[in-house]
Amino acid sequence: MDALFDRHQPTLAAALKAVQDRGYWSAYPEIPSGKIYGEIAKDDGLASFNLRLGKHFDLPGHPEKSGVGSEVSPYGTTLEITYPAADADTLVAASRAAAPGWAASSIETRVGICIEVLARLNRISFEMANAIMHTTGQAFAMAFQAGGPHAQDRGLEAVAYAFAEMTRTPAEAVWSKLQGKAEPIILEKHWRTVPRGISLVIGCQTFPTWNSYPGLFASLATGNTLIVKPHPGAILPLAMTVAVIRQVLGEEGFDQNIVLLAADGSGAEITRDLVENDAVSIIDYTGSSAFGAWVRANAGEAQVYTEEAGVNSIVIAATDDFAGMCSNIAFSLSLYSGQMCTAPQNVYVPSSGIETDEGHKSFDDVAENIAASIDALLADPVRAAGVCGAIANPATLARVAAAQTLGRLVRASAPIEAQNARTATPLILAVDSEETDVHEQEYFGPITFIVAVASSTDGIAQAAALARSKGAITAALYDTDEGRIDSAVDAFATAGVNLSINLTGGIYVNQSAAFSDFHVTGANPAGNASLTDTAFVANRFRTVMWRRPKAA
Amino acid sequence: MDALFDRHQPTLAAALKAVQDRGYWSAYPEIPSGKIYGEIAKDDGLASFNLRLGKHFDLPGHPEKSGVGSEVSPYGTTLEITYPAADADTLVAASRAAAPGWAASSIETRVGICIEVLARLNRISFEMANAIMHTTGQAFAMAFQAGGPHAQDRGLEAVAYAFAEMTRTPAEAVWSKLQGKAEPIILEKHWRTVPRGISLVIGCQTFPTWNSYPGLFASLATGNTLIVKPHPGAILPLAMTVAVIRQVLGEEGFDQNIVLLAADGSGAEITRDLVENDAVSIIDYTGSSAFGAWVRANAGEAQVYTEEAGVNSIVIAATDDFAGMCSNIAFSLSLYSGQMCTAPQNVYVPSSGIETDEGHKSFDDVAENIAASIDALLADPVRAAGVCGAIANPATLARVAAAQTLGRLVRASAPIEAQNARTATPLILAVDSEETDVHEQEYFGPITFIVAVASSTDGIAQAAALARSKGAITAALYDTDEGRIDSAVDAFATAGVNLSINLTGGIYVNQSAAFSDFHVTGANPAGNASLTDTAFVANRFRTVMWRRPKAA
Repeated sequence: MDALFDRHQPTLAAALKAVQDRGYWSAYPEIPSGKIYGEIAKDDGLASFNLRLGKHFDLPGHPEKSGVGSEVSPYGTTLEITYPAADADTLVAASRAAAPGWAASSIETRVGICIEVLARLNRISFEMANAIMHTTGQAFAMAFQAGGPHAQDRGLEAVAYAFAEMTRTPAEAVWSKLQGKAEPIILEKHWRTVPRGISLVIGCQTFPTWNSYPGLFASLATGNTLIVKPHPGAILPLAMTVAVIRQVLGEEGFDQNIVLLAADGSGAEITRDLVENDAVSIIDYTGSSAFGAWVRANAGEAQVYTEEAGVNSIVIAATDDFAGMCSNIAFSLSLYSGQMCTAPQNVYVPSSGIETDEGHKSFDDVAENIAASIDALLADPVRAAGVCGAIANPATLARVAAAQTLGRLVRASAPIEAQNARTATPLILAVDSEETDVHEQEYFGPITFIVAVASSTDGIAQAAALARSKGAITAALYDTDEGRIDSAVDAFATAGVNLSINLTGGIYVNQSAAFSDFHVTGANPAGNASLTDTAFVANRFRTVMWRRPKAA
Repeated sequence: MDALFDRHQPTLAAALKAVQDRGYWSAYPEIPSGKIYGEIAKDDGLASFNLRLGKHFDLPGHPEKSGVGSEVSPYGTTLEITYPAADADTLVAASRAAAPGWAASSIETRVGICIEVLARLNRISFEMANAIMHTTGQAFAMAFQAGGPHAQDRGLEAVAYAFAEMTRTPAEAVWSKLQGKAEPIILEKHWRTVPRGISLVIGCQTFPTWNSYPGLFASLATGNTLIVKPHPGAILPLAMTVAVIRQVLGEEGFDQNIVLLAADGSGAEITRDLVENDAVSIIDYTGSSAFGAWVRANAGEAQVYTEEAGVNSIVIAATDDFAGMCSNIAFSLSLYSGQMCTAPQNVYVPSSGIETDEGHKSFDDVAENIAASIDALLADPVRAAGVCGAIANPATLARVAAAQTLGRLVRASAPIEAQNARTATPLILAVDSEETDVHEQEYFGPITFIVAVASSTDGIAQAAALARSKGAITAALYDTDEGRIDSAVDAFATAGVNLSINLTGGIYVNQSAAFSDFHVTGANPAGNASLTDTAFVANRFRTVMWRRPKAA
């Protein structure tokens, strides 16, 4: 049974070393290259995806009372895939029935299965890229990376943390207490891990795999059964994931219902029924703060791990690479049309302008140069489509349209030419923080405020305060004054937000690397958990002992 | 500032090794011996305790709007000590004001201070023993051990876990990602831990230090400020603790209000106000399940760690040491008059009796021999007082009186002769599980049910089911059949309860040793946390990063 563990032991060992070192490491190549994945992998992946369209997604043995599914690609086509669906009570009953066998399996068996699943998911990364692209609207290259290898890396990271934690203390020990001149008392003690119960994973539409894999694999590795609840607009990526897990579970002799898909339709979601079910012991949630608050309030005794929303900020105090800064920010604002949880919304700039390697730049200079950098980045429609992708949800387009009047227009949003897709390039607005606080709420999508502040110190204070009150997942600072940088480091740390300083070139504030960056701190309202730290895994299982006098 | 860390580094290192090995280890000697603590330590401790009686307990610089305190010793005397008291908002405001300096201190500074505090608490163990004795009713020897060195060990264990977790990953790393033929992207990354905020510790009357120290020291070591809310009947032990912490904090140049005492009076408790205050981010609670449920439901976004109540069971299937078994059980039932959270309440015995080294014993033989062993143990009133101590709460005496008719009387409870104290020896009742389920609720105090079951397998099933539904902190089994023992191990593990097998001689199911036994599993309703595992410390702080391109 532990052949899989033995096979994947080198990968596990490397992952354990990577999370300890926190330098760059990846288990699954991020480049969609035929040399790595096979020359026909890209065509095969597309063909496999196309074969799923218009059909029922079969999950043999899965509870199924009806079929649901109405996914429409942001690139225009209707997927016409239906998925097996059942009510919450049916899913919970099937999950409970599958639980004892999984709980009784060894740590090595479960971890081996998890890494085998990740390896198989890696092999279908091209098919997954198409599934991600046509549910989230991500451009193909990003869909491949973020939905495939990067998500798999995040899954492996969670498995490594779970393994480390389950094996941190010994499974047995001898306790020998001296008793003066009398015989010592000697006990043998034995410990085992027991799972919490049913783990519910609630996925989001924009990153259905990347954001779901950590909780999913952490719970699976620690012996819990899983109910995976995808967003109604992005079922396919998680259905494919569930199918792979069920396949491996079946091959290894386990009840496939250890992992279930909770597909539902928009307007008829079963999420609340699942959250409120007392048998659900763990909930991983990615999504809006409004529904996140409901989940936290209604989860009963379940452990809840959330990534919700916030307002991410950039503060520009000074730079010694003005062009590089503007290009870097332009890319961060454009990538996936601001639909990343890590995308900046507010750019705080002193109203008196900043000092740069190109001399003094006024507030307007800064705003216009960022806008011009976006224009340059997106001038070629093919490249624009590759950077911006498409808009996942029609409501985001409406939000962009409604936002146009919230400030002074610096750059208008526009569709990307020659696309059938639902697209929108970044809208850039200028506002003055002394006149408005409109920018202090979240506008999800390609909407950016260049915010005039009294000074860079004021900008840091405002950005940090906003992170504390509304939440933030990322912050960025451009500055040349080391003393002010030190103060900003303290301010953003106190606000519980990860800070990137002076990024230029090919690395962006949006990016969060598995095995190195903890994603979300859990220290402000943007989420209560971090991907992946010990706290994310340590309470998904409990430890139980038996002890007896040791035979001499 | 880190002189304390350097001084106590050997203790920390030994504690870290002990929690890894999980064999016997203790930092603070449990024997109240003059050879260890100094020949005059016992007299000094009593004198210091007596000096506190009838006076105001001074905490210089502590918020104080009034004085409260009406502790009455279970041994008869009124302590007549008053403590500084303030409303919840005042305490919270003082705690918030003290927070930034503590949050900014280094891990080493905080851990050094924590271990210095524990060392000083150890030096006043005799005074603490008197304080514990005259608030909880524990006999002196137990008050010394459990309230002094054992509590200190549990505190050190929590500090060690907190230190291990805060230093698990590096404080900085270099992330270098190759870019084909282009220059690699190199980032320097820096991480720091940030505390959650205010940590509220809600103590219980019976073990005010032992049960409070883990959460208290875990939160303090991780940089949170503390509000310590004692039970109105057992303020002194925690007031002394707070005083020692404030003394060390003051000496080290910190705001003493990093640790506050939330003393209140019975009937005018401020616990609810504190729990409901949004600034409280962590709550450690020990007490009844009823109030525990209220705390869990009303804690908002605070992390809540509880030890609540349950029904602990012994199952007797067979034994090869009948006399040793009966003596061992007799001691477990008598120790501190059943007021330990680890004390057994139900003893399941097959109605057809059991096989022993003394031949077949009927159900009544077993019940009567346990009762006779108690009689023998408690025959000498001085020894009886030393084992049973006194009854902390008058309601427990009333409960014993009311319980007498709940089953067939096997042994009557009685006061201990020649005592001015509020005392009660164990009440033993026989019931048949086919006729009643009266034993399936908790009767806190010296109340035991010998429960007739169809078979030992039935007894194991009933005890495990009860642990699952009502909670249990301990379980014990006597058996000679290894196959049945294996099944029982599985049954109790699934019920999330620690199991002791075939204990005879000087080790008891009630005992839980720091650095080896995880106390409470968190896997059944008796509590949601474990003293001390990683989950108990890992979410008391969060990790925040800053990163920037690394200069070449």
